[in-house]
Amino acid sequence: MTTELPILGISMGDPAGVGPEVILKNLYLRDDRFLPLLIGKVDVFEYYSRKYGLNIDFYAVSDVSELKSGKAVGVLEIFPDETVSIFPGKPFPKGSQTAMEAVRTGALLALDKKISALVTAPIYKKGVIEAGYDVQGHTDFLAKITGTDKYVMMLVGGGLRVSLVTIHLPLQQVFAKLTQDSIFDVIVITHNALRRLGLNRPRIAVCGLNPHAGEEGHIGTEERDIIAPAVLNALRQGIKVTGIFPADTVFWDMLQGQADAVVAMYHDQGLIPVKTMAFDSGVNATIGLPIIRTSPDHGTAFSISGQNKANPKSMREAMLLALEFGRHTADE
Amino acid sequence: MTTELPILGISMGDPAGVGPEVILKNLYLRDDRFLPLLIGKVDVFEYYSRKYGLNIDFYAVSDVSELKSGKAVGVLEIFPDETVSIFPGKPFPKGSQTAMEAVRTGALLALDKKISALVTAPIYKKGVIEAGYDVQGHTDFLAKITGTDKYVMMLVGGGLRVSLVTIHLPLQQVFAKLTQDSIFDVIVITHNALRRLGLNRPRIAVCGLNPHAGEEGHIGTEERDIIAPAVLNALRQGIKVTGIFPADTVFWDMLQGQADAVVAMYHDQGLIPVKTMAFDSGVNATIGLPIIRTSPDHGTAFSISGQNKANPKSMREAMLLALEFGRHTADE
Repeated sequence: MTTELPILGISMGDPAGVGPEVILKNLYLRDDRFLPLLIGKVDVFEYYSRKYGLNIDFYAVSDVSELKSGKAVGVLEIFPDETVSIFPGKPFPKGSQTAMEAVRTGALLALDKKISALVTAPIYKKGVIEAGYDVQGHTDFLAKITGTDKYVMMLVGGGLRVSLVTIHLPLQQVFAKLTQDSIFDVIVITHNALRRLGLNRPRIAVCGLNPHAGEEGHIGTEERDIIAPAVLNALRQGIKVTGIFPADTVFWDMLQGQADAVVAMYHDQGLIPVKTMAFDSGVNATIGLPIIRTSPDHGTAFSISGQNKANPKSMREAMLLALEFGRHTADE
Repeated sequence: MTTELPILGISMGDPAGVGPEVILKNLYLRDDRFLPLLIGKVDVFEYYSRKYGLNIDFYAVSDVSELKSGKAVGVLEIFPDETVSIFPGKPFPKGSQTAMEAVRTGALLALDKKISALVTAPIYKKGVIEAGYDVQGHTDFLAKITGTDKYVMMLVGGGLRVSLVTIHLPLQQVFAKLTQDSIFDVIVITHNALRRLGLNRPRIAVCGLNPHAGEEGHIGTEERDIIAPAVLNALRQGIKVTGIFPADTVFWDMLQGQADAVVAMYHDQGLIPVKTMAFDSGVNATIGLPIIRTSPDHGTAFSISGQNKANPKSMREAMLLALEFGRHTADE
């Protein structure tokens, strides 16, 4: 390798979805900021590049060391001896499998420090399961590969950074999962992630669970019984954590510069403000892993795949955030 | 009365709070749009007007018929034979009582169609209870006075209108209060309120309760079992209702013009987007009452009362929204 630019690994996503499209539409970003390493199939990228008149040249590599600077884009081939058919909008098992192996390859390269960060394009969860993978999606797959049991979903967009204590649970099941330990862990992981973004002494604001953060026990007791002990524990570790704030005003506070991230107790509490402010440019970062991983906050969008209609903004922000994380990690 | 302008009744709020201040700072709005009828004490308004150098002239009236057009502002006196002491930031029972009787007077005038709408400045809930009122706040007080049992809190701000099915409940208690009937009632009341705003065939979007609106039953079942039947019921009544939408994207949809209001299942689900978008200009409207009532979305703010620091934006929006509601009601 003849460059000192960071290498950004980008997994292709499902070849029937909009993943390749939004990747290709953002390659202009690289400039002299990073060297992209696409992970997937040259054929797939060439297909979409031709289809959208993007005129990008690709070359296959079998190892990161073969990456070259210059305009052509290197693709680390998955299943190099096979071809994958491409039917926009119509997923099939081999495509799902290729997408998943691209993720695995990227994760292993990141663990090995061969790439500075991994950005993942959308996979098709149902197809992945049908292809024989026993996972819910990217996140738990990456956790398994990297041997991590504590990781957190952080949403970034519209001036907000939000970490979630619980994610895809029915609201009724949130209460059992909110524990002093689970909240404490999310605060610590968020603290460490913010430090990776170059914030030396990051300020973390913690949401209550109930309206008005429980109004001193008049509207719920989880703040006093569960959240407050977690906050105190984090303070004792020297983390600059504040709260407990009512969830309806804390995001405004962050927009005014009063916090570097918010810890939210459940999915909609954290996603409503991010998606209302930044519907098409939100980014999902998995923090707490030993590697850096970001992704756009949308799915395969099969219904518009192959039609040159996908909005590339969220992937753009995912790539920029991965670089931002990667830049500071190098300093550690 | 010698004017055809609508009369906007504005109750003073707690004299120790910022209510009088934010009222006075918005009287410039009246122009030739409305005739204000302040309801409270001339002394209180004069005190704050002098304190802030606003140079407003007041005159006491004992009946709406005594209101005159012109620059001076009419105040309907509560307890006309008594004086009320004024200590900014320091509430006392007689002040709380005066504030509540101003609300009662305004509600009765609105019921009697002597005023077109009532805007209420903030009261001090604890003081009101100490003064002997058996109420939680404005809303249930107005419901009692007007003999209403079905009413809804609607938040308006930042381009959003949001009606709440449940309000100040611990999150754990929301589930028991969400019923097909309670959701249906909120949809109907919202529909009627939007018609009062001049929307002939308003479009109402309904939120799910769970992440991704339950993802077809994979993340919770309330959408299928409780919310969907309510939506169907409303559709059968000819109401233009859509959903069930994931709460994290529906507010963006509304901002793009795809709905006239959103029905949210619980406090933070509805307040997070409004307060994140419009922290200092949100308005609270109580809909479903036989009168029009709006209020600013803040409290007495005793800690800054008397210091000329209160932000008058929310009261401004409350007055404008009351006028908007009142204008179309006249056409019915």
